Formats: sequence, C-alpha cells, structure tokens
Amino acid sequence: MNPDALQALRARFGEQLSTAPAVLETHGRDESHPEVVPPHAVLFARSEADICAALALARQYRFPVTPFAAGSSLEGQVIPVRGGLSLDVNGLSEVLAIHPSGFQATVQPGVTYPALNRRLRPHGLFFPVDPGAEATLGGMASTNASGTAALRYGTTRDNVLELRVALLDGRVIRVGSKARKTSAGYDLKNLFIGAEGTLGIITELTVKLHPLPAEVAVLRCHFASIEQAAVCAASIMAAALQPERLELMDEHELHAVNRHKGTAYPEAPTLWIELAASTAAGLGEALHLCQEVCREAGAQGLEVASSAAERQQLWEARHHAYYAMCALYPEDERLNTDLCVPLHRLAEMIAFTRARCDQRGLQGSVVGHVGDGNFHVLFHARPEDQESWNKIHATYDEMVDRALQLGGTCSGEHGIGLHKQRYLQREHGDTLDLMRGVKALFDPEGLLNPGKIFSPAPEKALM
Amino acid sequence: MNPDALQALRARFGEQLSTAPAVLETHGRDESHPEVVPPHAVLFARSEADICAALALARQYRFPVTPFAAGSSLEGQVIPVRGGLSLDVNGLSEVLAIHPSGFQATVQPGVTYPALNRRLRPHGLFFPVDPGAEATLGGMASTNASGTAALRYGTTRDNVLELRVALLDGRVIRVGSKARKTSAGYDLKNLFIGAEGTLGIITELTVKLHPLPAEVAVLRCHFASIEQAAVCAASIMAAALQPERLELMDEHELHAVNRHKGTAYPEAPTLWIELAASTAAGLGEALHLCQEVCREAGAQGLEVASSAAERQQLWEARHHAYYAMCALYPEDERLNTDLCVPLHRLAEMIAFTRARCDQRGLQGSVVGHVGDGNFHVLFHARPEDQESWNKIHATYDEMVDRALQLGGTCSGEHGIGLHKQRYLQREHGDTLDLMRGVKALFDPEGLLNPGKIFSPAPEKALM
Repeated sequence: MNPDALQALRARFGEQLSTAPAVLETHGRDESHPEVVPPHAVLFARSEADICAALALARQYRFPVTPFAAGSSLEGQVIPVRGGLSLDVNGLSEVLAIHPSGFQATVQPGVTYPALNRRLRPHGLFFPVDPGAEATLGGMASTNASGTAALRYGTTRDNVLELRVALLDGRVIRVGSKARKTSAGYDLKNLFIGAEGTLGIITELTVKLHPLPAEVAVLRCHFASIEQAAVCAASIMAAALQPERLELMDEHELHAVNRHKGTAYPEAPTLWIELAASTAAGLGEALHLCQEVCREAGAQGLEVASSAAERQQLWEARHHAYYAMCALYPEDERLNTDLCVPLHRLAEMIAFTRARCDQRGLQGSVVGHVGDGNFHVLFHARPEDQESWNKIHATYDEMVDRALQLGGTCSGEHGIGLHKQRYLQREHGDTLDLMRGVKALFDPEGLLNPGKIFSPAPEKALM
Repeated sequence: MNPDALQALRARFGEQLSTAPAVLETHGRDESHPEVVPPHAVLFARSEADICAALALARQYRFPVTPFAAGSSLEGQVIPVRGGLSLDVNGLSEVLAIHPSGFQATVQPGVTYPALNRRLRPHGLFFPVDPGAEATLGGMASTNASGTAALRYGTTRDNVLELRVALLDGRVIRVGSKARKTSAGYDLKNLFIGAEGTLGIITELTVKLHPLPAEVAVLRCHFASIEQAAVCAASIMAAALQPERLELMDEHELHAVNRHKGTAYPEAPTLWIELAASTAAGLGEALHLCQEVCREAGAQGLEVASSAAERQQLWEARHHAYYAMCALYPEDERLNTDLCVPLHRLAEMIAFTRARCDQRGLQGSVVGHVGDGNFHVLFHARPEDQESWNKIHATYDEMVDRALQLGGTCSGEHGIGLHKQRYLQREHGDTLDLMRGVKALFDPEGLLNPGKIFSPAPEKALM
C-alpha cells in the first residue's frame, strides 16, 4: 500500500485505522494456516458508511481489501495474501430487528451466531447454523458455513433471505428479499453467499429463524469400527427418523475431547444423534425406533441425554473437537479436510479413507456431519516431518478424487480460500472461466480479497 | 428465421422438427397470455445431444431459442416473442436414477413432478414441490416454482442439488453437487434456477427427496372475513405448529371450485391446514392445538380430513382453483398476481389488497400459500372492458408498491417472464445492470429466450 493511500485512510478514519504490529499480526492469520501474512493496515469499521468509504479509497488508490470478522475461517480466507487493508467488521455487531412472527431477524455482519441466539431465546426461536467457532453471520455467509444442525435446517445459504452488499463501484445493493421466497430475476444473493468476500462486502443480513423444538434428546452410542458407525448413520437416515443432528466422531477425536474437556466418553467410533418432537410421547417413540436401528447396526453403550444441561455439555464437546485435537498436538501443523458426498456413498467413502490412512500408517481422525454426507479428517504432523506431509497430501489427493467420482464436493462447508484451489479446479474446472467472468463483473481490478478461490496464492504480499 | 437456418435444422433433425401451424400455435402460448406468438419452428428434442446441436445451429445462424416443456408458465416465459426455435424438451422424460438411501433422484428436464412422485411412492419418498399444473422439473427449476408444500420443504431452488446445463458456447456444464451441501466456488447453480431459460438449457437435474410423512391430517375452517383468516394463519405459524401446508382461499375461489368440482365447501374465506407427525398420538396433539388456535381466531366449521382419499380430494380442489376460476369466466381475460411479503406483514397486505379492490368495485379473488406470505389475486374482465382493466392495473400497481415497502417481492413463485418486467425494475432496479452483465456472460448475443426478465417485449416476432 503506498503512503498516499495510507494517509488518505488515516485522514478519513483516524483512530479506527491501525498499523500496530500486534493488530496487523492478528489480522494476518486464521484458524488453519501456519503462515501469517499481515495486512498493511486494519480498519475497524463501525458502519456501512465506513465500509463504502474504505472501498472508495481502495478504488482510488488501488489497494486490496480483505474482509475480516471472527478470523475463524479454516482455509485462509481472511489472510490478506496481497497485503493492503484488512477490513474488520466486528464493530458492526448490532441486531437491527427481530420479527418473531415473521421468523426473521436483520443483523449486521459482525454479529456472532451465539450472540444472535442469546437474543432470540426469549422468543422461543433460534438461528440454526452452528459452525462451532464464535463465527459471525457475515463470515458464515461468505463461506456458506453450516455445522451440526444443517441436516435439519440447511446451511447458511438456506437461511439467508436478503443481503445488503457494498460493491467496489460505490453502490450498496440489496439482493434477495425479506419475503420467504422470491422468483424475481437472477439470484444474485446466492452469488455473494460463499464468495468469500471476493465480490462485495456484506453490510447487513436478514436471516430465517426457527422455533426451538419442544422436546429434544440426544442418543449416544459407539461401534467396533468406524465403517459400522457410518453404516448405522445411513440406516438412521433411511428410517426417516429425520434427526436434528447426526454426528460421527472417531476414537482419536474422543480421546482428544476426553483430555481437553475432562470427560470420560468411550474412546471408540461414536454417533451422536439428536432427535426432537413436539410432544414427549412423540419423542419417546422416535427414541425407541432409533435405539432399535442402532442396536441392529451393532451399537454399544447406548445412552440418552435429555436434560438441557447434559445436551449442552455434549454438543460443546462436539463443537470443541477441533480445538481439542489442536491442544493435544500443540507442536504439530494441521490439515483439515471437508469432503461431502451423497449420503448413499458415505459409508464407502469413509471406509476408503480409513483404508488409505491405515495403508500409509497415518492417524487421520474423523469427525463429521454424517447425516449430510460431510466429514472432516484432521491430519497432523510436525512441520518439518516432510515424509508424513507427503503421505498426508497423497492421501488427501486420493480422497478428493474418490469423493468427486462419487458425485461429491471438495468442500462441504469450509470454502476454498487459499488451500483448496487445486481441488476446486478438479471439481469445477469446466466452469472456472465463468466464475472468473462473474468476478470480473463485480471486481474488474481484482481488489476484493485477491488470491482466494481461483488464483494461486503468492508467496508474499505484493503491494 | 432465415431459410438456411430452417434447412440446417431440418437436415439435422428430420421428423423431430415441425413447422405445422397447429404445433407452432401450441408452442406460442402459455397459461397466462391471451396473445399467441408462434415460433418459426419447433424441435422435439430427445437428448442432450439434440439440445447441444440445436444451440450450435442457433449460434451459427443467429436465431433465438426458447425452451418449452409443459407450457404451464404464468408470465409468458415460454412464448417465443422474437420467433426462432421453440425447443421442446418434453421428450427428455426419463427418471435416470433414484437413490432412496441418498434421498436423491436424477431426472431429465421433461419429467413432471407427478410422474416423478409416482415412481418414488414405492420407496416411501416424495419430491415436495407442487406448483399445481402438470409442470416439468426443467420448467420448475427455470422459474423457481414452488406451491403448497414450500412452507415445509422449500422451493424448487431449495430442492435442486445439481444441474447439467447446455450453454450457447457449446459446452455442457455441471453446476452444484450431488452432495447435500457444497461451498466450492461461486454458486452458479442458483443463477440458472429462476433464469427462465435465458442463460442456458437445463438438460438434467439431481433433486432432493423427502420421506413421506407417516401421519397426516388436513384441517379446514372458514372465517367471517379474509382479514380474520390471514390473522389466523399468522397465529398458526406463531404457535410453532410447523404445518406441512397452510393455504387460504377466499369466497370467490371457493364458489368457483364448488362449481368446477361439484363440491359443497362453505363459500367463505377458508384456511386449509395440513399437519403431519411421525405418530398418531403426535398428530392428535398437533390437531388439538391447531383447532384451539383457529377457534380463538374466530374460525367456524372446523373439519378434519384424515384419510388419504379425502386429503387428495381436498388438495386437488386447491390445485384446480386457478382452472376453476378460468372455467367460471371463460370469456374473460385474466391477470394473476404473485406477491410475497414477510409473514408478519401478510395480514396487513391482504387487508390493504381487499380494501383497494373494494374501493374500486373489483372482484379480486384471493388464494395463497399464506404460511409463506405468498398470495395470488386473480383479476378478470372482458378483454374490451378498458375501464375494468384500468382499475385492475392501478390496483395491481398499488399492491406491488405496498408489497415492496413491506420488504416483499413482486414474484413469489411465478417468475418475471414478459409481464412483470416493470415490477422487477421497481424491486431490483439498482441491480438490473448486474443481472444484464450475468446475461452477457452466458449469452452475449441475446439468443436464449430473448425478451424475458429484462427487456420490454416487442410487439411482434422479429426474426
């Protein structure tokens, strides 16, 4: 960023602009990447007007702008690999409106989903997308995040009705509609969802809300093998039990969770199944049927958690699984996959994954939203252990190829960012030119979050 | 279309190409439009290869191509207003794959949703989008159709996983994924859904399937006023009953249905509420609560239909409402609105509509998917009755403005086509240039279904 640009930013934003090394450093990383690429400056935006003004200066001085919120992205999305301005939207953290009878709320992009849910609880409503970190709605929309409840309620994409987006050309546009459905023209809204901030900056979101289910219970059971657990998950879905959540964690993950949270879950491949019903009787019947299905599939140690406290503890353990693994191997570098395959291919995909890991002597721990066909394998090794990294990358490569053969995708919920660009090439190579055409329509100079989704990431900041 | 083009089409397609006047005539109209604009030729495509070959000739000879399937569009989408080729995809009517345990099916674009559902029933599954005509999946995707079950299961958009699309540049691309969720690059799939065939021709769809609910009942009740019925609908939603369907029909619609179907429903504003549960006990409790809510809102004549036959009869009556009104006024021209507002604004919007109709002495009959905030007003008058038409258009104009003020959309499910272009301008005028940019990316010469969505419709065929 040239000195004139920095001066212009300072003149406009004063104290809201920071070039303090510690601030640059925290805005130069996310949850995935061992490398840190600090921006040249960080703007703590407080309003849509701030965002528009920043984009105007970016256009004038031609510096890159990378949006930043919770910093919990897993593929390097918020890392300003070409330097420039990190546009921090955490200050836009107001819940602007809640319409309980309309089942919708309008929020600023820096609102986190737990904060929104705290505001919604008195209304008996919730926003169901729960990616597991203290993620913001703006960030979740930008990667089309999902989580454990996507099985029943869909992804962020399915739960965003309308967006306001600041464009590089100086406009703020409204895409989608506050109505629950619309067939009015091309769907520009869904272009911004999952675009990782490369097409515009989201300044406001209107999202769908759902009634909190009346009766809820969580069933936990474990299996002799992960393949058995995956087959059981498919059987639960086939039984039309329509669980709220259906999660798989393998023995490695449970070991990490037990160490991290002081729990004593059996360290075996485990399914966690959340069921809900409008009445206690209905829930009882569903639980009964579900237990039968699990037993037939070889489940052991069936336990039911019904109280809110027990359930919360359980899901907290699940949500902290990633951090538990990180804590268990603090010196290691990590690689977290995010494949998603059609449900009828999941057991086969997981068996393939485990077999390939075993062949190479790799510990690839599996955790997944298996009701959606989405699962993560967390690989880890010392940064300098090139032999392990070669094995890990070879295994990941084979897994991606198999998932694509099975009709799946290289990313279920984490997005592409810096780290999956060659897999996007494999999956959608035939349409990348069209995606680039869309990019050029909104950002002809490539100033918005450059280096993400398409282009290879450069080694160092350029500007 | 110039003679060389026609000759080339004939040489390639032989008997599959028709210029018979009766065929041209049936491909020059849809369900809405009094006017007929026949194409120059109709191609009865049988395969994706046929579609690609037709597009290649269109590119070479620069003639327009307008896709055609059931012809049940309501905004003139299939009318080839600039002549050229009508590309009939009804011959692509194969269900290519059903994966019950994957909850997905892959179909050709000419498959109708009732035909798909007949194939799915033995598996205990269904495809939930039911726009009410014998619509095809390709057409439904092209307008993002919905219907009575969208309340619970979403629109066509929400139920399409993956598309194959033939582009004008000669490619067939795959957009989306057969996985239930994906965050891999820009969402091109949703650009094609609702694009009304202006960006490419859908040649294959993979759609989501859902388990048939175990226990179902329909509650019917009527009200002293339509405003009261709308308030009751909002109360049902607020009670978190999560109905499968929640439909409103006013006294005029019920009169037409009674005449058309030989039924004897009370001719008063009526709600039809479908509830489902996994157990009979659960359903009983939901029905009990729902009846309470309805009574408190002033409902009369509460009746419950539980048998499959009764329910089918009821929904058939609802699905035929539009045709019943057409049959009742065979000489009249019709105008059917499709506004959708946030649920918490629906009662206000319907009261506004009724008041404006009453002020002008218009009979605007109301039928709607009120659980979604979507309702249709069917106006009708003799074609030559200019005074009535002036009133109708003035009322429609005011309704659109009010719906947009309330955060709604000019089209909930019918699309824009020929007839709502000025309303799209009002709703998304600030992004039409971006939509045109997207159009130029896929169809720089404007050969795909020209005259729809954006441009004013020309008076006569041009080529």
